[in-house]
Amino acid sequence: MSFLIQQVLMPVDQGYATVDVDIEADRITAIVPQNSPLSRGNQSFTVKGQNKLLLPGFVNAHTHSSEMWQRGIIPPLPLELWLAELYDFTPLELEQVYLSALGTAVETLLSGGTSVVDHLVLIPGQEIETVAAAVRAYQEIGIRAFIGPLIQDEALAKGIPDGDTKREHEAYLRSTSETLALMQEMIDQFHNPEAGVNILVAPTGIQLCSEALFEGCIELSDRYTLCRHAHLLETKAQKLLAQEKYGCSAVEYLNRIGYLNSRTSLAHCVWLDEADIKILAETHSTVVHNPLSNLRLGSGIAPILKYRQAGVNVTFGCDGAASNDSQDLLEAIKMGSLLHNTTELDYHHWITPRQAIKMASFGGAKGLNLADELGSLMVGKKADLVLYDLTNLSLLPRTDPIGLLVLGRPTNVVDSVWVNGEQVVADGKITRIDTDELRKELFERSQWMVNRQSETVRQLESHYRRVMGLLDYS
Amino acid sequence: MSFLIQQVLMPVDQGYATVDVDIEADRITAIVPQNSPLSRGNQSFTVKGQNKLLLPGFVNAHTHSSEMWQRGIIPPLPLELWLAELYDFTPLELEQVYLSALGTAVETLLSGGTSVVDHLVLIPGQEIETVAAAVRAYQEIGIRAFIGPLIQDEALAKGIPDGDTKREHEAYLRSTSETLALMQEMIDQFHNPEAGVNILVAPTGIQLCSEALFEGCIELSDRYTLCRHAHLLETKAQKLLAQEKYGCSAVEYLNRIGYLNSRTSLAHCVWLDEADIKILAETHSTVVHNPLSNLRLGSGIAPILKYRQAGVNVTFGCDGAASNDSQDLLEAIKMGSLLHNTTELDYHHWITPRQAIKMASFGGAKGLNLADELGSLMVGKKADLVLYDLTNLSLLPRTDPIGLLVLGRPTNVVDSVWVNGEQVVADGKITRIDTDELRKELFERSQWMVNRQSETVRQLESHYRRVMGLLDYS
Repeated sequence: MSFLIQQVLMPVDQGYATVDVDIEADRITAIVPQNSPLSRGNQSFTVKGQNKLLLPGFVNAHTHSSEMWQRGIIPPLPLELWLAELYDFTPLELEQVYLSALGTAVETLLSGGTSVVDHLVLIPGQEIETVAAAVRAYQEIGIRAFIGPLIQDEALAKGIPDGDTKREHEAYLRSTSETLALMQEMIDQFHNPEAGVNILVAPTGIQLCSEALFEGCIELSDRYTLCRHAHLLETKAQKLLAQEKYGCSAVEYLNRIGYLNSRTSLAHCVWLDEADIKILAETHSTVVHNPLSNLRLGSGIAPILKYRQAGVNVTFGCDGAASNDSQDLLEAIKMGSLLHNTTELDYHHWITPRQAIKMASFGGAKGLNLADELGSLMVGKKADLVLYDLTNLSLLPRTDPIGLLVLGRPTNVVDSVWVNGEQVVADGKITRIDTDELRKELFERSQWMVNRQSETVRQLESHYRRVMGLLDYS
Repeated sequence: MSFLIQQVLMPVDQGYATVDVDIEADRITAIVPQNSPLSRGNQSFTVKGQNKLLLPGFVNAHTHSSEMWQRGIIPPLPLELWLAELYDFTPLELEQVYLSALGTAVETLLSGGTSVVDHLVLIPGQEIETVAAAVRAYQEIGIRAFIGPLIQDEALAKGIPDGDTKREHEAYLRSTSETLALMQEMIDQFHNPEAGVNILVAPTGIQLCSEALFEGCIELSDRYTLCRHAHLLETKAQKLLAQEKYGCSAVEYLNRIGYLNSRTSLAHCVWLDEADIKILAETHSTVVHNPLSNLRLGSGIAPILKYRQAGVNVTFGCDGAASNDSQDLLEAIKMGSLLHNTTELDYHHWITPRQAIKMASFGGAKGLNLADELGSLMVGKKADLVLYDLTNLSLLPRTDPIGLLVLGRPTNVVDSVWVNGEQVVADGKITRIDTDELRKELFERSQWMVNRQSETVRQLESHYRRVMGLLDYS
């Protein structure tokens, strides 16, 4: 299959150029001035690019797809308590995993994403089947998938600092070695980059993982050249916990055990200090900024301008839909750039719309060790492309297309999406699945509700408030 | 005209109820359990409310409609320099004012707003005609309009603190008395609450207005019972300026001259201290929170939780589309609630989705001195109503409808809107104007551009950086 996108706007150094873009199979094979003789090849068909903007696909670099079942329902709570409620009601059916992976992919594709990093919550006892369900969804819809099965080997309550109490903790339901054996099986069964499915090692984070689990993940990552992923210092409580657990910062700890390298992406990174930032820069780790989730859970504002000044690669994620509560990448990009203007008086350091777009595309590719293959409009790169309709009301009047896209609130602006050269969105519609059918399934398997009560929140809240120095309301 | 909305979800104290809502002419005349005999009147027609949520319309409580012509184009700059660029390229044609008022109304209506407060930039020499153009747009499309002609009597450069320099300032193009005479004429010609058009007195703020101008506005406001509006302490620079100008805070000053009362709404309110907040509470003034604009311009995070704790009425605005760069009220409501979770560790104080909805509807009505008429679903109130389609993918799976609406990123969810009992949106479409024609006009009267250079920014920047203590890059 080959095709030509004709007369499309693309960003160049000094503004925009109108070009023809030739795609052969899965690659961009030519980008030439519009109507150049070079662009008249033997393409199977052409796509009209007039009044449209072409950009490389973004990466939704951190999410948890099955949280979609709980979006809009969890009340204002900080991460540690929010997580307790989330887990009390986590979906336990494989069909739910499949449907929410589809939903996550739909919203990602329709907001400019071509890749998704799914830090996937596993159904206990059906771990392999959980991954299979997500893989099935992503392959059907045609998004490039990076699945990091979310593993831990310590029970939830251990993620809250002890303070001066000496709490006993129950054991986690799976042992470390069982967990690593599952990871091995998942890699064997599903890791297939050529088919657009990649497995990542993804221990949830220092708050719920033993050193043995991290070490096992490092070993697997090195043996199969897998990317590494984890949550890192999302909350103040986690910063306190790292000091309790290791007597040093979480970043120093992860560096010491060798978890940090250029294949490592770390979600959140809100509570790092200067020394931590230096380590991330030196190890070429990637920060995944999840601005909406960090606000929703009151985690704080990640020091993104400092990361950029220190040369740390930064990209954006939506995070799971129960802490956002959407999977709209353009929203994450907007908030992830604007938020930091309040942290720095000198506007020369503020993130521009063009920088934001590059962070979301090239920065995302880099964090997945794929900077040579993805993330920019260049001959030879994979054809993971998004075409935006610039005649949409939300992008009018005409000014700077990228400014409108990043700073506005674009609605229904994605006209077409290609992943690996295959079209997965056409004329604003998902091509490979029936989204009305998806809506019907999501509707029928859910119900309107309010005032859900979480037993685990009830159990943990008083201890949480105590160690965080909050007044006790009980 | 009378009609019945059947079997619709509406929020009640303990969750949601399914009700029938009867509307006669411009008022809600009955809200009864679904299929109640009481609900079978002599309505002209019925509206199916099944799987839909009914809410009172929100107020877009602070915007500048003609900024739409410059959305997406102004680079990352703080307010004082951003304003310089904005004014260098401000639209000067009446037809532009008309079209951007339509565009502002479309986006407001399609994101749940039924009222708009347009702090309207006036074309020099065509001030009356500018207001006439906006009035024409708002009456055509059918939104409830509150127009505050943006007046000042001091030149732009005076809005930046002098620091230790002794700058000379040119006179503003209109004198104070000429400006007040224009206001008188606008009130005479356009103020017509019964027809849905209200004039506000709206001096831009202490940074560019003399005491005589404020006093003239107070006099007009009292004579005609008009609401009062102004920008207030949006930036750190304005806080410095108030000290330079008055030797006290801007709030103390406005209170002393008698500008603050229960008909006064104040946009931004970012740089207030505890004493200022107390004054706002005592005078029953309303704060209009513009979270997106405050982030975009790096103005800061307004202390909204403190306002709420002090009993100050707070509502939301989009602000003009050159500092946002959208007019989506649901986005402003989402960000205006979530942002503050990072300023307060105790989640018991965080704004819930239900509180946010009430701030946007009832809080908005209160700020316009219309709490008896607008802002809640109650028998006897005006029928300014919005019906949301809960089967939209962005609101699925089903959980808490208001949680989904506020915390998600709803797209195309507004099914119907009524203003004063008249339908202005049906089946997701604006009924009274042709939005394709609007798109065409906005498209044809604009062009894609980058790297626009503002002469006034060039002139002001070095002084701005100096008084704000920023390194000089020149």
